[in-house]
Amino acid sequence: MSSLTFELIKKSSRSKARRGRITTRHSVIETPVFMPVGTQATVKAMKPEEVRDMGADIILGNTYHLFLRPGHELIREAGGLHKFMNWDRAILTDSGGFQIFSLAKLRKITEEGVYFSSHLDGSKHFLSPELAIETENNLGADIIMSFDECAPYPSTYEYTKKSMYMTTRWAERCQKAHKNTEKQALFGIVQGGMFEDLRKISARDLVSMDFPGYSIGGLSVGEPAELMYDMLDKTVPELPENKPRYLMGVGSPDYLIEGSIRGIDMFDCVLPTRLGRNGTVLTSHGRVIVRDAKYARDFTPIDPECNCPACKNYTRAYIRHLIKTDEMFGLRLCTLHNLHFLINLMKSIRGAIINDSLLDFRDEFFEKFGYRKKDQ
Amino acid sequence: MSSLTFELIKKSSRSKARRGRITTRHSVIETPVFMPVGTQATVKAMKPEEVRDMGADIILGNTYHLFLRPGHELIREAGGLHKFMNWDRAILTDSGGFQIFSLAKLRKITEEGVYFSSHLDGSKHFLSPELAIETENNLGADIIMSFDECAPYPSTYEYTKKSMYMTTRWAERCQKAHKNTEKQALFGIVQGGMFEDLRKISARDLVSMDFPGYSIGGLSVGEPAELMYDMLDKTVPELPENKPRYLMGVGSPDYLIEGSIRGIDMFDCVLPTRLGRNGTVLTSHGRVIVRDAKYARDFTPIDPECNCPACKNYTRAYIRHLIKTDEMFGLRLCTLHNLHFLINLMKSIRGAIINDSLLDFRDEFFEKFGYRKKDQ
Repeated sequence: MSSLTFELIKKSSRSKARRGRITTRHSVIETPVFMPVGTQATVKAMKPEEVRDMGADIILGNTYHLFLRPGHELIREAGGLHKFMNWDRAILTDSGGFQIFSLAKLRKITEEGVYFSSHLDGSKHFLSPELAIETENNLGADIIMSFDECAPYPSTYEYTKKSMYMTTRWAERCQKAHKNTEKQALFGIVQGGMFEDLRKISARDLVSMDFPGYSIGGLSVGEPAELMYDMLDKTVPELPENKPRYLMGVGSPDYLIEGSIRGIDMFDCVLPTRLGRNGTVLTSHGRVIVRDAKYARDFTPIDPECNCPACKNYTRAYIRHLIKTDEMFGLRLCTLHNLHFLINLMKSIRGAIINDSLLDFRDEFFEKFGYRKKDQ
Repeated sequence: MSSLTFELIKKSSRSKARRGRITTRHSVIETPVFMPVGTQATVKAMKPEEVRDMGADIILGNTYHLFLRPGHELIREAGGLHKFMNWDRAILTDSGGFQIFSLAKLRKITEEGVYFSSHLDGSKHFLSPELAIETENNLGADIIMSFDECAPYPSTYEYTKKSMYMTTRWAERCQKAHKNTEKQALFGIVQGGMFEDLRKISARDLVSMDFPGYSIGGLSVGEPAELMYDMLDKTVPELPENKPRYLMGVGSPDYLIEGSIRGIDMFDCVLPTRLGRNGTVLTSHGRVIVRDAKYARDFTPIDPECNCPACKNYTRAYIRHLIKTDEMFGLRLCTLHNLHFLINLMKSIRGAIINDSLLDFRDEFFEKFGYRKKDQ
């Protein structure tokens, strides 16, 4: 089999939404899909069985973090990331680019690659398209990303243009460096900031290189939601219908729904795990800060409409007690619920695409959750 | 049924060891048993299913901690501690006495009870035998403890004597205050420090009050192991054969084995959970500090002889990586393994009692684990 196949199951007649299926060597992934983030070879506060049991078919690993600790050579010696972390379904790794630009210090960008200092200990490192791919080859994820520069928001047109063209040249170098094409599918990453023409050029140039899938980077970096939606509206039509489309770093419920409506197939975000560790949960009626005093004697579940193990077995009062007393299990329950909530949301989105009712689903979800409706 | 029954299955012919079975309203407990500690209504870093799956039939809750947070009235409103924390097997609560003397500040001990300041926020509280029992009644554990003073080590003979007699008077008051005798079995606690005659007086006086079980408190408080063993040798023969005997706060592998040899039926200790959170694990060949650099590329399990989920699925290298990167899952795996190790040790002890080979088992275990053999 090839490293990745994508099957288009249904196209909405009312929006660009599509229901698909990605097959990798480790699992079959129903799309649109939300991918939990396992930055350091673990989905924070979870164990693999819990992530599997909630229905996750694919998770993320972060190349930048694993490059620094424990190192990709060590993970290769361990038999690859799947074996190292005991996860037998698909994994996607990013290229490290985004984290170098958001976390690392003293970085110097050259055509050859990026010099940077570790955010952990200041140690000096260099990553190039070739080294990023070598790292990702050693990690052995099913889907890997080309090395890109994610331009900050806001950036000038000139800066963004230069950066976008370099990212495209880097994508070519990544494609050449990629040794393991039979097992790992390399995606190109569309950049171009908030500039329609740059996004289109980036997309067309990458599409001409014929990647097995395309990522959209450099969005959800601080710009207004409407601007992101607009960029998606301009970018997605440039991408081929028969390849999966991945909107990087996006995972709030509204973005997942609006992204699906705009034809995105894959999403990832640290939101559910990060919120969970702060004692905040997503519910069908909006966010709940379960550590608040008003829940001290609330003997109802986090979300009465949810059937996850946290909601079936525990009350807000108990979870609040755990958080107030610094007990790890409280953060576990909040994280478990939040991941379950988003994975379940994607199930509903997929069902709504099949019924061609995603726009109605959006309106109902937004009203109940407390979002302002998009068109009001 | 009564709150607790104890069945004696086998008595060793070569030591005081015995194999028994305690039946409570929530579970049947094979003895000798090690009870994981769930101080704040959770076994730290674990979820109830994990504790159940490793074969724990009973866990502990700490009255002092639950009295302060979230409060026993709240737990009563939640339907009791079992329901609050989603644990459907037996629970034992201590009386809060030990923690008042080890954790709280500015305590003042009177015949009536103890005035103390919370170690959390300095707030002032009072606990008496009657209030401790009221608290334990509200928590609703299957086995509850009478309110005692645990004299520090070392203490003078005079202090220990006065304290022991007061603890006995408090035990009488606890017995009178206990309202829920059909569902909760109240144990008396033998005190008397390191003085043989005081231990015997304490035991005899409590036995005359006919409790459904007896605890031995005030040991493993800093005294040499040999002194503790000597006190057990002097105390246990004073206790009735047909009632369970609980050695409080003891849980290192050597103490579990030596205690069982001396006729103890129940043990508890924070050791496995606390060690686990520090990245230290118990193995058949002794303690391993898995965070050490020498395990960075050790792709073998924590303990190759162990069949717990942590040892079946993960390597030392992976667990070390998790601990070095502050990932919660590393502490979960270490804690899970340590609890499994002690629960499995108790299984071996019970098997050895049935075969009447516990003394040989001790010698073999000690040699392999790296303990000095007792008689050398």
